[in-house]
Amino acid sequence: MTSELDHLRVVLVATRNPLNLGAAARAMSNFGVRRLRVVNPYAVAFREARSAVGAARLLASAEECESVAEAVADCTLVVGTTAVGHRELQHRVRRLEEGARLIRKRLRTGPVAVLFGSEKVGLSNHDLSHCHWLMRIPTREAHASMNLAQAVAVTLYELVRLGRVPRGRVETQPAASAEVERITGLLFEILCASGYVKPRAAVDTEQKVRRLVRRLNLDARDAELWTGMLRQIRWKVGR
Amino acid sequence: MTSELDHLRVVLVATRNPLNLGAAARAMSNFGVRRLRVVNPYAVAFREARSAVGAARLLASAEECESVAEAVADCTLVVGTTAVGHRELQHRVRRLEEGARLIRKRLRTGPVAVLFGSEKVGLSNHDLSHCHWLMRIPTREAHASMNLAQAVAVTLYELVRLGRVPRGRVETQPAASAEVERITGLLFEILCASGYVKPRAAVDTEQKVRRLVRRLNLDARDAELWTGMLRQIRWKVGR
Repeated sequence: MTSELDHLRVVLVATRNPLNLGAAARAMSNFGVRRLRVVNPYAVAFREARSAVGAARLLASAEECESVAEAVADCTLVVGTTAVGHRELQHRVRRLEEGARLIRKRLRTGPVAVLFGSEKVGLSNHDLSHCHWLMRIPTREAHASMNLAQAVAVTLYELVRLGRVPRGRVETQPAASAEVERITGLLFEILCASGYVKPRAAVDTEQKVRRLVRRLNLDARDAELWTGMLRQIRWKVGR
Repeated sequence: MTSELDHLRVVLVATRNPLNLGAAARAMSNFGVRRLRVVNPYAVAFREARSAVGAARLLASAEECESVAEAVADCTLVVGTTAVGHRELQHRVRRLEEGARLIRKRLRTGPVAVLFGSEKVGLSNHDLSHCHWLMRIPTREAHASMNLAQAVAVTLYELVRLGRVPRGRVETQPAASAEVERITGLLFEILCASGYVKPRAAVDTEQKVRRLVRRLNLDARDAELWTGMLRQIRWKVGR
């Protein structure tokens, strides 16, 4: 289990409050999860959090990233967390319990990122477009939004709760996010050059394409094939 | 379920930090647990906590007790929480998961108290003497002690998790074979026009593309999107 948990990356996006950042790191330490990545945290939050109880070392080795894409580049599965809103209709939302089971399975074969958004607004649509699916803690609808660090604690608890997972059959190696993002970029370029993308809707369409490509759940070998095909098509439409 | 949770009393003993008191109340509200009892909180902590996000009403109706005995007087089962230490040898310690199952059973017939100690020292031996047994969140030994509110959140999550039946998820409609074959045809045409397909290997490549497209396991809605995009690209490369 230890080595499997080493594949888990907790990604905190745009965290504002140093107390939350520190508390999230403490929860990670409690549950033996060490790899923290922070995307655009408020500088003060990141600096002040480094004194968190029992988690100073973990915070010191946290990686600062400039974008979600950078933070998830080496991951083969990217999962967003949410308190559910209208946006989720574009993604599949799984209950924490079911989601954690799938994540544990994937941790056996490669890095998995779990994203947590900022205290006020959660993950943006752009952040979400990098996710394969979303996960929701079963809070009550009338007061669904949890404290950030508590959400991290509950999520990690559920991930380690069952301990060792029975080994299943060896599966194909899923494509890394960087590769999937490369495919997204190629496809989007081709669609622009073909007149499929209306300039006014470019941002929406890019996110739509990003989600669409994630839903393919490509394995590494097929991703390579798609990349080759799309490069050739781009060359053709670009002439 | 609601009526069962109404039997649950969260008892915070000698809490010092208003942020923790407020955060614990928020977690209760998130998971639909309403009955909070506080035993000898620092007066300031209790007063200041009353502004906690989304949990003001819950805090306003919190009962202040002078002793653990008073706080658990109406309960038929009293469970302490701990990060495990030498003291526990005098009590049976159950893993949270097992403990939560027993608590849920007892909630059907009467009030149950779950006790959380102060941030620094947890529950005292005197507090523990009121407990039937103890419960432990499976944190790692080297850093077992959790933030108070996070411990409350994880405990309530586990209690609530077991109670709810996972909702049957709406399965998306898989794409019909005719649609998948249409996509295959469009993609193959585009690849031919782009020079990806070597004439001598055309038959092999077509089969490769067909298998590749089947492996996508497209649902009906995504298949429609892909068809639209590919038609536009074919139009472009065909000019």
